[in-house]
Amino acid sequence: MIPDQAARSAYLSAHQFQSPVNALIENKIRESFARQGLMQTLGASIRSVEPGRAVIECPFQLGLSQQNGYFHAGAITSLLDSACGYASLSVMEEDADVLSAEFKINLLKPADTQLIIAEGKVIQAGRTLVVCEGWAWDGAAKKLLAKMQATMVAIRPGK
Amino acid sequence: MIPDQAARSAYLSAHQFQSPVNALIENKIRESFARQGLMQTLGASIRSVEPGRAVIECPFQLGLSQQNGYFHAGAITSLLDSACGYASLSVMEEDADVLSAEFKINLLKPADTQLIIAEGKVIQAGRTLVVCEGWAWDGAAKKLLAKMQATMVAIRPGK
Amino acid sequence: MIPDQAARSAYLSAHQFQSPVNALIENKIRESFARQGLMQTLGASIRSVEPGRAVIECPFQLGLSQQNGYFHAGAITSLLDSACGYASLSVMEEDADVLSAEFKINLLKPADTQLIIAEGKVIQAGRTLVVCEGWAWDGAAKKLLAKMQATMVAIRPGK
Amino acid sequence: MIPDQAARSAYLSAHQFQSPVNALIENKIRESFARQGLMQTLGASIRSVEPGRAVIECPFQLGLSQQNGYFHAGAITSLLDSACGYASLSVMEEDADVLSAEFKINLLKPADTQLIIAEGKVIQAGRTLVVCEGWAWDGAAKKLLAKMQATMVAIRPGK
Repeated sequence: MIPDQAARSAYLSAHQFQSPVNALIENKIRESFARQGLMQTLGASIRSVEPGRAVIECPFQLGLSQQNGYFHAGAITSLLDSACGYASLSVMEEDADVLSAEFKINLLKPADTQLIIAEGKVIQAGRTLVVCEGWAWDGAAKKLLAKMQATMVAIRPGK
Repeated sequence: MIPDQAARSAYLSAHQFQSPVNALIENKIRESFARQGLMQTLGASIRSVEPGRAVIECPFQLGLSQQNGYFHAGAITSLLDSACGYASLSVMEEDADVLSAEFKINLLKPADTQLIIAEGKVIQAGRTLVVCEGWAWDGAAKKLLAKMQATMVAIRPGK
Repeated sequence: MIPDQAARSAYLSAHQFQSPVNALIENKIRESFARQGLMQTLGASIRSVEPGRAVIECPFQLGLSQQNGYFHAGAITSLLDSACGYASLSVMEEDADVLSAEFKINLLKPADTQLIIAEGKVIQAGRTLVVCEGWAWDGAAKKLLAKMQATMVAIRPGK
Repeated sequence: MIPDQAARSAYLSAHQFQSPVNALIENKIRESFARQGLMQTLGASIRSVEPGRAVIECPFQLGLSQQNGYFHAGAITSLLDSACGYASLSVMEEDADVLSAEFKINLLKPADTQLIIAEGKVIQAGRTLVVCEGWAWDGAAKKLLAKMQATMVAIRPGK
């Protein structure tokens, strides 16, 4: 009854081996991302969208730094927030929009990298609340720089 | 460069395939656990200790419930806090003690189960701060009931 | 435009100068509290309920300790979780129940006190989500031992 | 023994009525802020620095928006992170630097405002860890848009 590697893999793989998101939802996500002025300002782009998972990447530039020249925690958080938001949107109804209710992030290592890969993943999809985890990796996806836990809210028309 | 299943497994397996914790540290953890009055009150016991990982289990009793007869969020949180604390202690120096600096938990499902399995796992071990994740599973380790992200502090003698 | 003491007081006083909670809601809260087995096990009691605010107190006993004989972080968290839950319930519709969605706590000082006073307070009351802050004070209400930020969910019949 | 308005005010006023930060520390903070490329990119500026408190403001521009034209949660978080960081730096030793260990934020209202006022405040100052709260207000400092709880770490030379 101890959680074994199989259970752990199943947990991490949730939503991972389903069919691709349908075109309608992928379009909705990409259009929404294009309207996020902050993502443009940061120079971020969507790497991939799957059901329950979204990956955003962002190259380093001095305009994203904190005082020592690494990625600012706020920049990393912004990328992970959007990644978790779009991971959530991918499992919501087609006419829903998404807002961030709250999130928490641990900054694990100085983000001394030329590229951030921000991965958001749904771990619990309710009708109103969707809980996600987010991982910020360095460009080689070898070092975990930050870890997020987030709650997203589905906004439905007429509500 | 997209985090793939291999990178994800490596992340989750960190600290997992090392040799067992040495007897000195395992004793220190079990003695510390025995001094935690709250763990006795809840009826919890240590299931296993490995380097960077500790598993605590606790059977349900009415004295642990919230208003609807499920495990109280506070009981689950207490178990995960101790599991993360002992996961951290397992990677600290032999004369260190551990205190919780902070944690955040998402309650994912009503904890309608006869047994909680609380698993704590180190994801970043610094000299002073150790960052952990915690998972609360139902007794069959099939449903993820709650997810924690925690920061522990090493307390060293003479500091 | 700088937040001044007046704005800060207004923020902290939100919900504080309204009329008392009506008897129906106070009864609902006290009955719900009485059904929380964990609160009985910890030896906690409700000190007061006002609109948007609930105070729970709990005397120390060895059965609530961590390894050094202070209040276990999990015990403090449990008290604050219930305090935030009942603060939330006090502003919800009469037939609603409350569940914890998530919370985060910082443990600020070793809880070396004979009494914990756990105060929960609503800072944003939506129809479904209620956001609270929680403060754990020592028995003299002079030292802030822990600080919580929590999200509660309203559960309405037939939903 | 119930936390009363006096205790609550004392809590919120901690660090507030001390003498101004000395010129050396204020200079250190302003120079550090000037090196944060992200703050320049967002168009943020320091409004005030006091011992244990820092206020940053940032006017709205489309380049800071989420998909509906409000401030992106990541922008608000970035401002609060820096405000908490500099509030912390104001109470650290003169040769210390500050890094964010972790933070959690609740987004309370859609940030439909022309100006964000991000206020960071120390609630517990240890030698290594400093715990802060952050409030994001609208431009009139009337509506609380978001609430943060954060842990900052002092980095000292030669450590």
